[in-house]
Amino acid sequence: MRLHPVILAGGRGERFWPLSRRNRPKQLLPLLSDRSMLSDTVDRLSGLARPRDMFVITASDLVGAVREAAPQIPHHHVVGEPIGRNTAPAVALAAWWLRDAGDDAVAVVLPSDHRIEPAERYRAELEAAAWVALERRTIVTFGIPPTRPETGYGYIEVGEPIEAGSPVRTVAAFREKPNQETATRYLADGRHLWNAGIFIFSPAVMLEEIHAHAPEIAALLPALTERLADLSEQALERYYAAVPSISIDYAVMEKSRRTLVARAGFAWDDLGSWAALGEGASSDARGNATRGRTILIDSEGVVAFSDGGLVAALGVKDLVVVRTGDATLVISRDRVQDVRAIVDRLKKEPDGASFL
Amino acid sequence: MRLHPVILAGGRGERFWPLSRRNRPKQLLPLLSDRSMLSDTVDRLSGLARPRDMFVITASDLVGAVREAAPQIPHHHVVGEPIGRNTAPAVALAAWWLRDAGDDAVAVVLPSDHRIEPAERYRAELEAAAWVALERRTIVTFGIPPTRPETGYGYIEVGEPIEAGSPVRTVAAFREKPNQETATRYLADGRHLWNAGIFIFSPAVMLEEIHAHAPEIAALLPALTERLADLSEQALERYYAAVPSISIDYAVMEKSRRTLVARAGFAWDDLGSWAALGEGASSDARGNATRGRTILIDSEGVVAFSDGGLVAALGVKDLVVVRTGDATLVISRDRVQDVRAIVDRLKKEPDGASFL
Repeated sequence: MRLHPVILAGGRGERFWPLSRRNRPKQLLPLLSDRSMLSDTVDRLSGLARPRDMFVITASDLVGAVREAAPQIPHHHVVGEPIGRNTAPAVALAAWWLRDAGDDAVAVVLPSDHRIEPAERYRAELEAAAWVALERRTIVTFGIPPTRPETGYGYIEVGEPIEAGSPVRTVAAFREKPNQETATRYLADGRHLWNAGIFIFSPAVMLEEIHAHAPEIAALLPALTERLADLSEQALERYYAAVPSISIDYAVMEKSRRTLVARAGFAWDDLGSWAALGEGASSDARGNATRGRTILIDSEGVVAFSDGGLVAALGVKDLVVVRTGDATLVISRDRVQDVRAIVDRLKKEPDGASFL
Repeated sequence: MRLHPVILAGGRGERFWPLSRRNRPKQLLPLLSDRSMLSDTVDRLSGLARPRDMFVITASDLVGAVREAAPQIPHHHVVGEPIGRNTAPAVALAAWWLRDAGDDAVAVVLPSDHRIEPAERYRAELEAAAWVALERRTIVTFGIPPTRPETGYGYIEVGEPIEAGSPVRTVAAFREKPNQETATRYLADGRHLWNAGIFIFSPAVMLEEIHAHAPEIAALLPALTERLADLSEQALERYYAAVPSISIDYAVMEKSRRTLVARAGFAWDDLGSWAALGEGASSDARGNATRGRTILIDSEGVVAFSDGGLVAALGVKDLVVVRTGDATLVISRDRVQDVRAIVDRLKKEPDGASFL
């Protein structure tokens, strides 16, 4: 078996302003270590796959930054989408490129900007899931046991184990983001897992399922006659101009009967906001979490982040404080989702662009 | 009449960290305008006195910075004290230097780091007080009508007006910093004013009072035989090594019978902390006060200060946020006096010195 990680790194977003900027979205930020989340993701996959078997699909204007963040991946394996079209077109592209990679090839599609630990367990579970995908000719996803009634994630309702004692089960249903009441029920019933956005499959199996459930995408693939290394900007532009914007969950997973879900034993967090940096094991006894040069005195529930210079806080509670080279953000921890309001204000101000 | 302002600019302190540093104390900070508080003070005196009649007494290691901040004052009028010895030695020096300045000379001793407005009214009241000092051969101080039961200031208990309707009164007593109960009584009785640290006098009168009430200081003055312009470092060092550390209030004012107090009609604030930047008229309808590039959304009671870069706050309350080139401070507004705790922590840390 030979694994081919396909890292999806096309995300945008302003949730990590002021660290994130127009051309430096979350996956390129050093949120969890001194290197970017993408670099952490590539490192985490080391030992499971060779860098020359890895791919990154990102936005075309981020290609240079991605190549810099993941220099061990061959440059022509970093592909820039001319426009964002959600995940299905990218997964289809990856399956198409890998169609001739051999009978033992397994693609592992995964996001570039999640917190996952410990890495050893993650790799072992991914490898086990890849064997299942290869041998059973299925698409295996990962489900995370929920720890809170989260309304921001999709869920997977599990069916029966494929074998007694196996963490891999059939899929009863993919569920879209629930409302609070439903999320509370999901948390209680023990049959619903968070959809971690990881998809493991033989390229041929995914191509078959795309043909069956998303023929409008499948129809565009044969025009991509070049090998990946030779793929022209024009060919990519034609493909993305024609392909619908749709998630792989909606286009394929919800309809396919060849899906399975592995119950994850690793810790997972999609790190959706600054506040997430302080959740769980990352925080100290007073609920504070820090990165960079910081001093906290008589403070609790504070996330303090500096990528240069000192952040000092005294006598404050439930705040996120972020210092970058040109800006400082101070935001109530329960308002972190509203950081966009600051970005929106900056868009309207004469000198605002320099902070975006 | 010819006024000779003597600006006392020897203060130290860490209350405005991270903007204030070891060699950049409060009077050298641009807290109220784009220029230092000392520059603001010199500007405020313009029209009342000529720059060549002004003096600054500061710490010896700040002489260069003071000359830069007040370039219109002759360089030899900026005098550096080798060691801090409170206000009496400085006032005595000033009186001694000005003893030959002529019968119409009036010294106006004042701090360099207070907020005072409007400047026109201030100048008019200072000039009127100087006439009183000159004609009645007295030392005139300024008293500020208190607006809160402040325990951090000295008070002056007023006696009778020197003339019907005059804002200048006799002094019943100088009062040291009161406890809370006494301060509340002072505020209620209407007879106590805050001591603003302004002293207006003919040099000869002050010298007579120093001879009478602080002979140990008076005895050291004749050794200073040089004119100010020629005063050697050695002579200054001898004087400061021998002179007691004592305030002019305690050494002279509390004992002299030749004191008067003018009730100030101008607004005054000693700006004792970051929180003071947000007090009174400086704040907007939500109690926020800002300087530099800032964005505040859904916030109240916030003092936001930037001397470079953007400070953005959202959903926060009663905070002080300060951003400088190398540090960001976030502190609860009711804990601003404890900023020293951060400075103390930095003194103990290996890389801390660079932030002090």
